Amino acid sequence: MTTDTQTTVGILRQAVADFVDARDWRPFHTPKNLSMSIAIEAAELMERFQWLTTGEAQEAVEDPAELAAVTDELADIVIYCLSLSNALDLDVSSAVLGKLQANEHRYPAGEFRGRFRRPEREKASQG
Amino acid sequence: MTTDTQTTVGILRQAVADFVDARDWRPFHTPKNLSMSIAIEAAELMERFQWLTTGEAQEAVEDPAELAAVTDELADIVIYCLSLSNALDLDVSSAVLGKLQANEHRYPAGEFRGRFRRPEREKASQG
Amino acid sequence: MTTDTQTTVGILRQAVADFVDARDWRPFHTPKNLSMSIAIEAAELMERFQWLTTGEAQEAVEDPAELAAVTDELADIVIYCLSLSNALDLDVSSAVLGKLQANEHRYPAGEFRGRFRRPEREKASQG
Amino acid sequence: MTTDTQTTVGILRQAVADFVDARDWRPFHTPKNLSMSIAIEAAELMERFQWLTTGEAQEAVEDPAELAAVTDELADIVIYCLSLSNALDLDVSSAVLGKLQANEHRYPAGEFRGRFRRPEREKASQG
Repeated sequence: MTTDTQTTVGILRQAVADFVDARDWRPFHTPKNLSMSIAIEAAELMERFQWLTTGEAQEAVEDPAELAAVTDELADIVIYCLSLSNALDLDVSSAVLGKLQANEHRYPAGEFRGRFRRPEREKASQG
Repeated sequence: MTTDTQTTVGILRQAVADFVDARDWRPFHTPKNLSMSIAIEAAELMERFQWLTTGEAQEAVEDPAELAAVTDELADIVIYCLSLSNALDLDVSSAVLGKLQANEHRYPAGEFRGRFRRPEREKASQG
Repeated sequence: MTTDTQTTVGILRQAVADFVDARDWRPFHTPKNLSMSIAIEAAELMERFQWLTTGEAQEAVEDPAELAAVTDELADIVIYCLSLSNALDLDVSSAVLGKLQANEHRYPAGEFRGRFRRPEREKASQG
Repeated sequence: MTTDTQTTVGILRQAVADFVDARDWRPFHTPKNLSMSIAIEAAELMERFQWLTTGEAQEAVEDPAELAAVTDELADIVIYCLSLSNALDLDVSSAVLGKLQANEHRYPAGEFRGRFRRPEREKASQG
């Protein structure tokens, strides 16, 4: 039985690569298309919680059927993330641990305990 | 040195959990908020490729500085995915491998080689 | 002074078209790029409310500075929507009123008063 | 027959408000929920172009059935934008024209003719 404690990121990346290659999907799995795909799947995950309050959403996932649906959506997002890491030949583990390390400095535990950073006023984007 | 071939998903999940707990951020890392957070980071990834053609985007990531920026964005997405798996206590590896297995049936390699499924006409959403 | 009661959608579409044409941006404003752009700006809007409960988000917009920031983000989204309608030469007003009419049948007021439709279990997407 | 040249934004906002009120949906149409809803509909729009190159996407919308599907998705996005403007009682026309004016200074036509601004290296977000 698979578990996160025993499964390396590399095993999951290989499973995704095999799935994509068996269908000759590499030409579709470009960085731009995969970035859209991750966003599309993230939206399907959000859809589970769209009309619920933050608290109601937390209760909803206590229902096994709802949790299964949420798990399915999360899997889709992770699969596309792994496919992008394959397409770009980048190491997810170093990226994640490196980013957490960088965030240690940007969000000192003492200063940000129980607090988050409010977003700055947005800058102009291309109209 | 960390590499995907040696790093389990569980190690990354623990690193994210430690980061979140050191800041008492669990109250913010609710399913609804994390689904938004994944989508927000996915949008920052898309922003790297927003105005580029599919081909230009592929060339852009050959620049090490651009690849580093893209890697950074992907890390943010994965970190929130792992935080959601922690919040829901679900196993990412089984979810990913289970979803790939389900997709084996939904996308038979023979039928979908080099082809993708066009989306159906959208169904009405709440106005 | 401009107000929604006096301003036609066509006036706003023309203002966006003039802005885009003055910069020769039509080659960038393709349907695929604009769909990404709308999603990117939608994410910047979500970022204003990312860590707030549904209720806290409602209180936050009572602060004029926060409301101005939210208004700015909404403007970016609408501008890209109008640019897409220009690029596709489609009529926004008929699209909106037509969709509301279709939704009248899909969401009968009697059946959906105070109730929303739970999303179906997601269908497999390309892994 | 409705056309953008004759239809004010206010008429569309009123139609959306009537639809929402007939279903007592105001409690669901909070700023946070509507920002998610706009992003979810934007993702459905992106899905039309997910696996197409920028050029293929442009050809695809020449098919009337595909253009109708895209128009439907755009309508959903605009409807939620108008519902947010109703919920926040803000003027869409002044927001759009004001933002275009601000962008005139941020994107001088001379400097940005045929050119776009590359995104800066992303700043750390909450891990």
